[in-house]
Amino acid sequence: MLRTQFEEELDKLHNQFYAMGTEVLAQINRTVRAFVSHDRELAQEIIEKDEIVNNYEVKLEKKSLEIIALQQPVAHDLRTVITVLKASSDVERMGDHALSIAQATIRMKGEVRLKDVEEEISKMGRAVKLMVEETMHAYIKGDDEKAREIAASDKDIDAHYDRIQALAIERIKENPEAIIAGKDYFQVLTYLERIGDYATNICEWVVYLKTGKIIEL
Amino acid sequence: MLRTQFEEELDKLHNQFYAMGTEVLAQINRTVRAFVSHDRELAQEIIEKDEIVNNYEVKLEKKSLEIIALQQPVAHDLRTVITVLKASSDVERMGDHALSIAQATIRMKGEVRLKDVEEEISKMGRAVKLMVEETMHAYIKGDDEKAREIAASDKDIDAHYDRIQALAIERIKENPEAIIAGKDYFQVLTYLERIGDYATNICEWVVYLKTGKIIEL
Repeated sequence: MLRTQFEEELDKLHNQFYAMGTEVLAQINRTVRAFVSHDRELAQEIIEKDEIVNNYEVKLEKKSLEIIALQQPVAHDLRTVITVLKASSDVERMGDHALSIAQATIRMKGEVRLKDVEEEISKMGRAVKLMVEETMHAYIKGDDEKAREIAASDKDIDAHYDRIQALAIERIKENPEAIIAGKDYFQVLTYLERIGDYATNICEWVVYLKTGKIIEL
Repeated sequence: MLRTQFEEELDKLHNQFYAMGTEVLAQINRTVRAFVSHDRELAQEIIEKDEIVNNYEVKLEKKSLEIIALQQPVAHDLRTVITVLKASSDVERMGDHALSIAQATIRMKGEVRLKDVEEEISKMGRAVKLMVEETMHAYIKGDDEKAREIAASDKDIDAHYDRIQALAIERIKENPEAIIAGKDYFQVLTYLERIGDYATNICEWVVYLKTGKIIEL
């Protein structure tokens, strides 16, 4: 089958978006690892790589707008472009939050740390990473059923969030010196929780891509 | 001058987006007031009103996509629609963060509070509100110069953020019982700081609306 130049452009856009998602997934993975292993060098690497994610976003936005303006796509083709245009901001913000966690890692050098809290944050980080991974799979397969399932699983992330906050409060009460690290624990928890929200947003766009329906998951 | 139905649709979209912005501005205003005055009733009201903001977003997305699909707008008209399509997510997330602050207000009943930290949060809240207000003005006037200025002022919000975090850490060290409220202070600070980031994003879209250029401010 011969493919038109337009179809090729759409495929490229689709793949570039997936590549951006993969990059952010790696950033999330790295940033949680750096945070819990107090690895400032790795954190620095994440900060430097944030530029890659931002460049993807600008490139994808430009390309999407160019396709809309010049090709005036319709139906499923238009939805493909719109999904990339909208969801690329969600992916970029996940990257932003990975960056914020890396910055916290660098700030925290030498502070009193809470080992059990960090272990729980590591678990939550893995759950968030898995959610983002599944979201990108659902996107690349255009699987709207799976997207709905993934969005529903965001409540597990929220459960981690509530549980770990309560744990951190207890530990800081016992050990007030840990408040400096504690501030970063609370903020890192917030960032991870929001990454889950962004994954949910992307799931909504997967449903739109497949069905044309704008929904709230 | 006779206006076409298409022009009227575009004007309506533009005005609806501004109305959404005004609603979120009111939410930010209310939520900071509720938080620092420990007003759980007002916080409850904010939680109920979040639905209005979400409905605006869904409506604006649907309308934007309909215009793109059916009217195939070009040049400035296309930019008007794209700006609404993209920036409405930023406005909705500001609303989300206002909601999260209201939820913190309700949680905090009866906890040990830190008066001076709350006064500083109130000041930061006013600065954030002002930034969002100016952003919506720049949008409605299509003032890209002003949009660039507003985005540059985000560093003042960041300065508030750093200063108040340091203050809260000091106070909690002196008074470890305040850690429960402290957790919410740190998270509310993060929400306010992110609202500033969303305002910066909208400023980028105002520049795009006026100049057609995708930039990072």
